Amino acid sequence: MPTVGPKTASRLAFHLLAAPDAQVQALAQSLLDVKSKLRTCVRCGHLSDTELCGVCRDPRRDPSVLCVVATTRDLMAVERTREFRGIYHVLGGLISPLDGIGPSELRIQALLDRLEVEAPGEVVLATNPTVAGEATALYLFRLLAARNLRITRLALGLPVGSDLEYADEVTLGRAFAGRREISSTL
Amino acid sequence: MPTVGPKTASRLAFHLLAAPDAQVQALAQSLLDVKSKLRTCVRCGHLSDTELCGVCRDPRRDPSVLCVVATTRDLMAVERTREFRGIYHVLGGLISPLDGIGPSELRIQALLDRLEVEAPGEVVLATNPTVAGEATALYLFRLLAARNLRITRLALGLPVGSDLEYADEVTLGRAFAGRREISSTL
Repeated sequence: MPTVGPKTASRLAFHLLAAPDAQVQALAQSLLDVKSKLRTCVRCGHLSDTELCGVCRDPRRDPSVLCVVATTRDLMAVERTREFRGIYHVLGGLISPLDGIGPSELRIQALLDRLEVEAPGEVVLATNPTVAGEATALYLFRLLAARNLRITRLALGLPVGSDLEYADEVTLGRAFAGRREISSTL
Repeated sequence: MPTVGPKTASRLAFHLLAAPDAQVQALAQSLLDVKSKLRTCVRCGHLSDTELCGVCRDPRRDPSVLCVVATTRDLMAVERTREFRGIYHVLGGLISPLDGIGPSELRIQALLDRLEVEAPGEVVLATNPTVAGEATALYLFRLLAARNLRITRLALGLPVGSDLEYADEVTLGRAFAGRREISSTL
């Protein structure tokens, strides 16, 4: 298992040997439950223990904004910001020909099917600002461009609390290109 | 001197002892020249060896966009991006009451005087996205808001090449809030 080396493994083993029977049985049952009960949401692909995940079941979420993310972990990162109140679509990865991952390996057809049915007004392509993330966003953009949709991408720029002097040139250049007018509500 | 501890100092001293006379004299002369010849540009406050600095003397720079930075190092960071073709104003620091730096310690009156004479169409408040940088930008914004000016701030968001999963929540939240429509020229 990741992060568990020989030393950690032996500490864990001895810890479990010394633990009460009930506690070990509860852990074993949890492990079985994870595999048997946890599945992916039939709508967005997020982890869920029911047919629809917590986000998809929540009536307070705004179905007019659909955020496309690569992984469930990215979805959870966006949720932690509490900034986004729309719904999600998890691709299950990024297009990466070197790793043998093409568009057909991702949940792209499922996305197109959802757009037909749900018809959101905006799709946020929230893939990473990396080569694979940009390539996937570009692929999706070309696929969706003909539709009557607002297609957006997360802002590139300076991280909050950072220093101009130590920002890399590409990021600072993007922060300049993407500069925005200050409103009087500041 | 910063970064020079006792060990480095003794290495430098022995290096100079072993160096040719002419080389040491050239170094000494350079040090004297730095103090005697280098001064700040009378217009923008950038380092210069002439009355006007290289940026202010360059006729290809666009005088309609004025970028306000805290320090000369920030100015040089912006120059390295090759993204900005306007002119600068160096404040000489950020407002920081705890360090005894108020607005009167900075080159703010000089900025107001320049705006009267040069009348640029846009002022970019390119101070750091830190507490002191935001406070200074807010102070300047309130000072300039009544003027017929476009006042902008650098984009906050994900650094290029970064990962959603590891972005801090505030930055990812800002990246979401500042998301922008993809144009068909992508």
